[in-house]
Amino acid sequence: MRIERLALIGIGLIIGSLALALRKAGAVGEIVACARGDATRARALERGLCDRAVADPAEAVDGAELVVLGVPPGACGDVARAMRRRLSAEAIVSDVGSVKAQIVRDVAPHLPDRRRFVPGHPVAGTEHSGPDAAFDSLFQNRRCILTPIEDTDAAAVVRVRAMWEAVGARVDTMTPEHHDRVLAITSHLPHLIAYTIVGTVADLEDEARTEVFKYAAGGFTDFTRIAASDPTMWRDVFLNNREAVLEMLGRFTEDLVALQRAIRWGEGEKLFELFTRTRAIRRGVIEAGQAYQRQPAPPASNARP
Amino acid sequence: MRIERLALIGIGLIIGSLALALRKAGAVGEIVACARGDATRARALERGLCDRAVADPAEAVDGAELVVLGVPPGACGDVARAMRRRLSAEAIVSDVGSVKAQIVRDVAPHLPDRRRFVPGHPVAGTEHSGPDAAFDSLFQNRRCILTPIEDTDAAAVVRVRAMWEAVGARVDTMTPEHHDRVLAITSHLPHLIAYTIVGTVADLEDEARTEVFKYAAGGFTDFTRIAASDPTMWRDVFLNNREAVLEMLGRFTEDLVALQRAIRWGEGEKLFELFTRTRAIRRGVIEAGQAYQRQPAPPASNARP
Repeated sequence: MRIERLALIGIGLIIGSLALALRKAGAVGEIVACARGDATRARALERGLCDRAVADPAEAVDGAELVVLGVPPGACGDVARAMRRRLSAEAIVSDVGSVKAQIVRDVAPHLPDRRRFVPGHPVAGTEHSGPDAAFDSLFQNRRCILTPIEDTDAAAVVRVRAMWEAVGARVDTMTPEHHDRVLAITSHLPHLIAYTIVGTVADLEDEARTEVFKYAAGGFTDFTRIAASDPTMWRDVFLNNREAVLEMLGRFTEDLVALQRAIRWGEGEKLFELFTRTRAIRRGVIEAGQAYQRQPAPPASNARP
Repeated sequence: MRIERLALIGIGLIIGSLALALRKAGAVGEIVACARGDATRARALERGLCDRAVADPAEAVDGAELVVLGVPPGACGDVARAMRRRLSAEAIVSDVGSVKAQIVRDVAPHLPDRRRFVPGHPVAGTEHSGPDAAFDSLFQNRRCILTPIEDTDAAAVVRVRAMWEAVGARVDTMTPEHHDRVLAITSHLPHLIAYTIVGTVADLEDEARTEVFKYAAGGFTDFTRIAASDPTMWRDVFLNNREAVLEMLGRFTEDLVALQRAIRWGEGEKLFELFTRTRAIRRGVIEAGQAYQRQPAPPASNARP
């Protein structure tokens, strides 16, 4: 597996980590990164996330064998349009967005050959963002989901799969719609809830908030980590996976109201029964290898944002 | 600081860790533990959590200088009644329960001298429970809250504070009622929400649930850890801190409905504004020293329950 010229559009935690990991695996020749901000490009070059950094998506994709989009979901369509005129019809285009159906809808119409489009989503990340947050072991033993569309070439899928396997990920394929339903519950709803409870605390009076900080270790800390994730990306996720998120949120709210009622009426057996069932789910997650594989720490420079 | 004879009633994660930590600090003479189950007593002895293990609370407290209750909140009253006839009037009584006003209400009437009662709550723990889960560094740099009642002797508070400081905790004092309001938001509500979302997943069809396990790394994993906590203890917490939990849950639900509405109507700016504010809360938690101080791993034998 070797990519002679790789174009990366956007250069944050995920894309930057992909660059570092491919470089470490010796799986890539030249990496050209595209970012709008001067400081981002300078930092990406400094950290060795790319060989060249440019501001224009069309310039970045010129001559590239594989292009990976790493901008927030809502920006993918515009970027695809902007890079179109210099994109080779043979180039494979992929992405790392956390929603898939909307990205397919926004990006595919702008590509010279949609058979070369292999949408993807590495299920990995930290609460940090930007080029400083990138580190080369981010994808080790993590899942990566590819969501080829009807027209996608099998050969293009094989190539993108090989790229993710080269950086240590375990690759699955499914439809974009199925991806969005699964991630609504495993990722989008947990983030939504974490953002909400941390927001509830943000609205407390100053004194109460200070106490929350002091005693956060009792459970709240995990929520603050999740709710520190990139705001732009998460805004786009919720706006673009609206139906699946609202459906899962509806189920959650029903369950929460039932639990609230059990507490109000002192129904201890109902509480005990639920709390026992949820322990079994933890075992399921551990058996599937998704716990106790904590993300490695990001680089020290970024450990305390 | 040295306790000549310490009685521990109940011997799980918290109390067992206290025993190991006091032993390590050389701050204790004889430790007598009380547990109902034969297997628990045997295991506590095997792991060196106590010198003697008995089934009868009265026998355990006989001659003890300090007694610490570590049974679930709902059982504290009964235990206090059961130990009464052999408890010295000079003995200091404390506990480690996650709710305080109810424990004060249930325990104080049974004590020979309520001036010797110093209710406490070390804000520390893991999702594991039982004597196998205990480890000696659990309280290092964690907060411990003491909630003396009106009658409590200052000298008794000093003594219990010294015990927690000997095992590395940072000790604060506040009223039982204030404790319960603070913990409702920092600990009880996060647990309630984690239990709910993990329960929502437990109710999914088999195939969907299996997929959740596979892709849990996207955010769900943290919730499963929280929702694997001891069911009996958490049932008692919710039943006994009902008003404060329902009040905080009410605020949370209002905020969740507002967010749901913003998603449904595509109000990106509202989402972005909230997600930016929550990042600031993360910084507050980190500055208060409550993040990046992850609990050390429990003993290897218990690492995968």
